[in-house]
Amino acid sequence: MRFELTKEFLERIRQAIVSEDTVWILEHVSDLHFADIAEIIDELSMEQARFLYYQLSEDLQADVLMYLEEEVRDRFVASLSSKEIAEQLENLDSDDAADILMEFPDEKIQEVISQMEDDEAADDIVDLLNYDEDTAGGLMQKEFIQARLEWPVNRALVELRRQAEDVEKVYTIYVVDELNKLVGVLSLKRLLFAKPKTQIRDLFEEKNLIFVKTNDSSEKVARVMDKYGLVSVPVVDLQNKLVGRITIDDVIDIIKEEADKDFQLASGLSEKVESNSTIWRTSRARLPWLLIGMLGGILSAQVISKFEGNITHLPALAFFIPLITAMGGNVGVQSSAIVVQSLAKGNDPFDSILQKVGKEALLGLLNGVLCATLIFGIAYLFNNVDLAFVVSISLFTVIVFAAVFGTMIPLVLNRYKIDPALASGPFITTLNDVLGLFIYFTVGLLLIN
Amino acid sequence: MRFELTKEFLERIRQAIVSEDTVWILEHVSDLHFADIAEIIDELSMEQARFLYYQLSEDLQADVLMYLEEEVRDRFVASLSSKEIAEQLENLDSDDAADILMEFPDEKIQEVISQMEDDEAADDIVDLLNYDEDTAGGLMQKEFIQARLEWPVNRALVELRRQAEDVEKVYTIYVVDELNKLVGVLSLKRLLFAKPKTQIRDLFEEKNLIFVKTNDSSEKVARVMDKYGLVSVPVVDLQNKLVGRITIDDVIDIIKEEADKDFQLASGLSEKVESNSTIWRTSRARLPWLLIGMLGGILSAQVISKFEGNITHLPALAFFIPLITAMGGNVGVQSSAIVVQSLAKGNDPFDSILQKVGKEALLGLLNGVLCATLIFGIAYLFNNVDLAFVVSISLFTVIVFAAVFGTMIPLVLNRYKIDPALASGPFITTLNDVLGLFIYFTVGLLLIN
Repeated sequence: MRFELTKEFLERIRQAIVSEDTVWILEHVSDLHFADIAEIIDELSMEQARFLYYQLSEDLQADVLMYLEEEVRDRFVASLSSKEIAEQLENLDSDDAADILMEFPDEKIQEVISQMEDDEAADDIVDLLNYDEDTAGGLMQKEFIQARLEWPVNRALVELRRQAEDVEKVYTIYVVDELNKLVGVLSLKRLLFAKPKTQIRDLFEEKNLIFVKTNDSSEKVARVMDKYGLVSVPVVDLQNKLVGRITIDDVIDIIKEEADKDFQLASGLSEKVESNSTIWRTSRARLPWLLIGMLGGILSAQVISKFEGNITHLPALAFFIPLITAMGGNVGVQSSAIVVQSLAKGNDPFDSILQKVGKEALLGLLNGVLCATLIFGIAYLFNNVDLAFVVSISLFTVIVFAAVFGTMIPLVLNRYKIDPALASGPFITTLNDVLGLFIYFTVGLLLIN
Repeated sequence: MRFELTKEFLERIRQAIVSEDTVWILEHVSDLHFADIAEIIDELSMEQARFLYYQLSEDLQADVLMYLEEEVRDRFVASLSSKEIAEQLENLDSDDAADILMEFPDEKIQEVISQMEDDEAADDIVDLLNYDEDTAGGLMQKEFIQARLEWPVNRALVELRRQAEDVEKVYTIYVVDELNKLVGVLSLKRLLFAKPKTQIRDLFEEKNLIFVKTNDSSEKVARVMDKYGLVSVPVVDLQNKLVGRITIDDVIDIIKEEADKDFQLASGLSEKVESNSTIWRTSRARLPWLLIGMLGGILSAQVISKFEGNITHLPALAFFIPLITAMGGNVGVQSSAIVVQSLAKGNDPFDSILQKVGKEALLGLLNGVLCATLIFGIAYLFNNVDLAFVVSISLFTVIVFAAVFGTMIPLVLNRYKIDPALASGPFITTLNDVLGLFIYFTVGLLLIN
């Protein structure tokens, strides 16, 4: 009963499209879940996608459109005429329609809007386009269900039935006063089980009302919904008037994007890239980090060149350069990853920076002693005692420093409102390379000559 | 209206607890949202937490308990007697109660269960404890609302009212046949707007029914709910009998944990650690990766030692060791991060491995040429022409190899069902260090002597 897209089925669909076998398509595709149809369209060429899409019923079209991969959707919509886009938008929720339109230049947006027949829908979309994409206003939809305080349950039911036609998923009914200010919420369950004459004011919940403001950031919206375990949250304007709602599906996307972004930044990828982006776009996303790495390599070369005499004297010193840089990098990345994740979760608001750095330093001491002891034994077997001392002492020092820097840098970046995940990748490793080599050769200079 | 926990307020609460000022607590804390009260308790000592907790109403206690940080909750529950735990469990949803009990040894579980007064609740919990924590069975709750096909709407409403007392959030009503097999769903909205005599069989939706099976993995549950945009999903047993439901809040936790886990693995952290774990636990989580780094460093030392003659001949060769290793590491991590994220999303099921590796190799060629040209210029300024050639040619080669390995290793791990995020961290950098140095010194040997 659960659908799994196979190569064979996809091939069969392609054949049906090429031979314009609408009977087969109607029978085998139109009855699938919209998410499954979207998955199929993601794999088709634009021309094939168009053909299949227009075989679907209007309601299904809207759902399929919103479940396409973003890139496919943008290309698909761009291939339509303004009139066709206007028709599609009328079947969508206002927030989805605004998201799609936002990808176009202003003139095209005006053209599409002017082609829309449903004026109310057009107004809602135009209104939503005013908000910044990354705010609650940019996330919210205009479709929600509201009830007035003074309504009795039966009046509310009639109104709700009318309103509900526009609202796909009803979770909560928002209760407003005569000025349209949000005063509370009412669960559908409570309404369902109330007596017809009961007034909404006697049913609704006004305590601990959770809402967001149109200008709250999307991260804040995600945090609020997550903290309070909400599936939808009402959005109010500066006068506390109810203007929209945000549902959990939009917020899940934000949560995933946030987590992905941290991982990407820490891995040295500077803008959103998917594995199906073009070579040029991907190259551009990666080069900045490679150049930082190059700069680090050149600085490291500078540091080592200052100690050329030591290397001439004892070439074996060079053997342990990669050990020192690798360990500095690994320890730094570990410490910073912990801090980055803890900052992302907003944990421990009352832990002082000093406390965190202190703990990491302690951990550095512990792991430093373990690693330094081990490497002393190994370097001793493999080379002379002096070298074993140099490697072991400098490794210990490098680990402690890397732990402290790995912790401090993201905390400092965060304080200056720079994304701390930036620190967790190439920055920390580069810094630790240069610092580590300096420590290593300085210890070498002191102990060996 | 939105609560923000300040140091001052926390201090005031502590004072009130110490002086057992229950009047102040009742006035200033009991009316807060349960998520906010949980946030406060997270910051208190166990003794203070207990005092505050028992000032709350029973309903509020249950909600607060589930919104505590996991570690705090486990410690808090562990501080209670079996009798007290049993009382708390009776107010919780069955899945939450089972999650809490699961932390205890079997004897303790039996003791707590035997103290529970609500036999039905106890049975539900015992039943849930049979399922593996990481499966749909382990995630589901026994509280859901079901209606039989043959019921008329008014009968359904009466039954639902009875059932609804146990179900905090009602999103969808599950429709079952006379054998209790899941046959479809009914939205509360549809029920709300239907005529009293209409039978459920004429209202419910049976097309494209989405459900999961008790033994589906939690990742699969998350994927299904995400793909189909669901806020709750019914769970059936092997005979398709309806046994539970999973709600979106439990799944958001899984989505976040998955994303965090990838980032942690890639950063060299081998088990779940929070910034507030003990030093020993944190040290244990990090040491394996450091030892891999050490092993890599020792192998690198071995490689370089084979080329000791070259270094004696031209010590400046050693200057660029960190450049080679850093660039190999950065490129490898970038390539692997892309693959890891794309695998985590389940994108591109039809892209062949060869296609991905080919694309990364091409990208490696492009970035390799850019970086190699740049470094040739710099190394030329800074040193002799021969060395500039060696650094530039080997950097190019290392970048291409690192791109290919960075792509292939996670793909291969994934094929053998090993978490590909493992590859993105220390493994890739270590491998690329050793390989890169070998390339560098071999090119040096060929071009310089």
